[in-house]
Amino acid sequence: MMRKKMYLCAFDMNCVGHQSQGLWRHPRDHSAEFNTMKYWQDLARTLERGLFDGIFLADVTGVYDVFGGSPDAALRAATQVPTNDPFTIVPVMASVTDNLCFGVTGSIPYEPPYSFARKISSLDHLTSGRIGWNIVTGYLDSAAKGIGQDKKDAHDTRYDIAHEYMQVVYALWEQSWEDGAVLRDRANGIFTDPNRVHRIDHDGKYFKLDAIHLCEPSPQRTPVLFQAGTSPKGQAFAGKHAECVFIGGHNAEQHARSVARLRTQAKAHGRDPSDLKIFGAITVIVAPTDRQAEEKLADYKSYGLNEGALALLSGWTGMDLSELEMDATIEQVESDAVQSALSAHGSATVRDWAEDLAVGGAGPIITGSPETIANKLEQWLAVSGLDGFNLAYTVMPESVEEFVDLAIPVLQERGVFKGSYQAGTFREKLGFKEPRLQAPHPGAGYRR
Amino acid sequence: MMRKKMYLCAFDMNCVGHQSQGLWRHPRDHSAEFNTMKYWQDLARTLERGLFDGIFLADVTGVYDVFGGSPDAALRAATQVPTNDPFTIVPVMASVTDNLCFGVTGSIPYEPPYSFARKISSLDHLTSGRIGWNIVTGYLDSAAKGIGQDKKDAHDTRYDIAHEYMQVVYALWEQSWEDGAVLRDRANGIFTDPNRVHRIDHDGKYFKLDAIHLCEPSPQRTPVLFQAGTSPKGQAFAGKHAECVFIGGHNAEQHARSVARLRTQAKAHGRDPSDLKIFGAITVIVAPTDRQAEEKLADYKSYGLNEGALALLSGWTGMDLSELEMDATIEQVESDAVQSALSAHGSATVRDWAEDLAVGGAGPIITGSPETIANKLEQWLAVSGLDGFNLAYTVMPESVEEFVDLAIPVLQERGVFKGSYQAGTFREKLGFKEPRLQAPHPGAGYRR
Repeated sequence: MMRKKMYLCAFDMNCVGHQSQGLWRHPRDHSAEFNTMKYWQDLARTLERGLFDGIFLADVTGVYDVFGGSPDAALRAATQVPTNDPFTIVPVMASVTDNLCFGVTGSIPYEPPYSFARKISSLDHLTSGRIGWNIVTGYLDSAAKGIGQDKKDAHDTRYDIAHEYMQVVYALWEQSWEDGAVLRDRANGIFTDPNRVHRIDHDGKYFKLDAIHLCEPSPQRTPVLFQAGTSPKGQAFAGKHAECVFIGGHNAEQHARSVARLRTQAKAHGRDPSDLKIFGAITVIVAPTDRQAEEKLADYKSYGLNEGALALLSGWTGMDLSELEMDATIEQVESDAVQSALSAHGSATVRDWAEDLAVGGAGPIITGSPETIANKLEQWLAVSGLDGFNLAYTVMPESVEEFVDLAIPVLQERGVFKGSYQAGTFREKLGFKEPRLQAPHPGAGYRR
Repeated sequence: MMRKKMYLCAFDMNCVGHQSQGLWRHPRDHSAEFNTMKYWQDLARTLERGLFDGIFLADVTGVYDVFGGSPDAALRAATQVPTNDPFTIVPVMASVTDNLCFGVTGSIPYEPPYSFARKISSLDHLTSGRIGWNIVTGYLDSAAKGIGQDKKDAHDTRYDIAHEYMQVVYALWEQSWEDGAVLRDRANGIFTDPNRVHRIDHDGKYFKLDAIHLCEPSPQRTPVLFQAGTSPKGQAFAGKHAECVFIGGHNAEQHARSVARLRTQAKAHGRDPSDLKIFGAITVIVAPTDRQAEEKLADYKSYGLNEGALALLSGWTGMDLSELEMDATIEQVESDAVQSALSAHGSATVRDWAEDLAVGGAGPIITGSPETIANKLEQWLAVSGLDGFNLAYTVMPESVEEFVDLAIPVLQERGVFKGSYQAGTFREKLGFKEPRLQAPHPGAGYRR
């Protein structure tokens, strides 16, 4: 019997120490070299050697300044600051790989659909169809201030804007240039047949545009669409538009509930629920033996920075956690929200909680030998109904190298991870039959 | 006596056949492969082999739709459409070179200064300081419609917006992070000293921002600043902000007048006039003998597309030239503006004019053996007072390969072109002593 194969993406960001706070202090960590070309080239080569499906590049375009009301704690711990533009490293990694794909975060408020659609088409051409877009509808308040707004838009409005943005980019990617518009006819001097290129005339509530798309159709036209929203509006958005969804959660049961809700949403939008590929975030620490993996986790934890972890959590929750006593227990904490967070995490004190979050962030961590890791991942998939994992790193690059060298071969032996890349675009590598969106996905309806 | 050395940039755009219309039809032309990684990697390697200082990437973010009131002619001839995002190919070329620098066109109306500054800093980090920014203040009407405006802003307003935009990006690049802010102090767990990172609080007429820059200081902080405006407002802008200026003109005397005006503007802004590096656009056709070069030009011309040339010119001038009779002479043309353009170009008929523009665009073309080319370029420099040339291509890549293989060695023998790259950043390679802006450049005043 063929076993269901899992998809694997690396979960990363163009910054120092993405989910793990302070691990840049570890003697073997190189994530502080994120400013260099070599860092990303080496990482891309390692991921391709391990047959990773993709690298998912998160982005926040803002700073974590809720903790203590300033970015100071985040700056000290390098909690996702400094952080560079994720789109600039995609061509760097693409230029040393043939199959690795890219899920890149692009925030809707930051760029008009006209130029954003062009950037994505350009990258889809350059990479021969290896581009995915993680659709982000909003940002931190600090990022809103970066573009002159006092506060980010209300949550519901953001999704209304996002739905309209999708209409515009679908029209640019799918409708503006017909297949066959580009003739490259040297003899008759016709590069493009203008009768097959169409002006997109959109006059909506939030966007207005009257233009042709600037790029000829790229291999995928619309990039593979990622989404990570967890609110009801976010899940509905994912059910309609997303092809890949990235979810958080402390355990496989939590993942299972999100997976069920998301597949229901996909069905409600007339789609096959299995056409939604759902990735759970997880941090894996693998070593030759279970015990060595535990020791490695303890070693990593000794480099964690609690303040950085709380700065990250303050940003996520909007609660300023700087006034909590580190030794406070659940009972001693005044805020109900913090109490319930501590309790959900099973932490005795604030310090325990912060220490725990400093490695792997809010997501789950699993440790063990390659066999143990394979057991745990297989079971996690079975319980959760996930299609794959987004693997957060701890110490870079050893975190990725060890997964590739130790865990991947065992997963392959068991038949739960592929032995070679599927040919074609990102969409085809994810198991879809065609390089382009197909009905009933709403984007496909725009194509002539 | 040491002769003054010329700077050389390649003049290009992320499209098919940039200045020459229809030469994608030539059997040896590969510019229709601009969608691929390999095309740009090969070009970058050739340019670096020839010790080119940089590649100047033009961009228009719109289509030429004045001719006949539609983009049809531009589409048929591939007149700068399709066209991809220039920023996506910079990391591709940077990843296969060590010294080649990049002057990339970024249009102010398209991106908020907060995220644009981050994109540039990210690229300056990745390339170890090889980034320049060609500041464009406006765009075609067709591009304005792409972002929901009916028409582009009035010319004067555009420059007011641009001056304020510069204030914001200088503050982000130069002022937000002090040198030494980033400690990477593993022992004490301090990556960045928050006391040396400053919030930029700008509340102006066109931009509002209250944020820290997201990136740590890159090698150059502010990229090398390019500008290409020719109006009085444009020249004043260049005199204040630009370090490199790119100018057009039919001959060395015209260049000389622009050079004089620009250096006067630099002086008026308290700068050393020689700190403005001025590049003239020129198309060079070189072959082993003068006669072979002439034959090559004739061969190239036989592939030109007149309609594409007129579509380009219509976009530049805002005049719809589609109604002109091809056989019309100067006297028969009704528009005074077209009459004077024909006369300035020395063309007998509209057809002559279009045929002439189809190879090399509106700029001058010189042809000849390597010796002849060296003579002409040397004399051009002497008469014009230019610092170097922006070389437009004809047939790609042979246009660049032949210049590198035939012309460069002769220029080097004569001591008018360098024999090896200067170490350091783009700014240092251009002869400035420091990698960063220095007083009295206004950007330097922002640094603490």
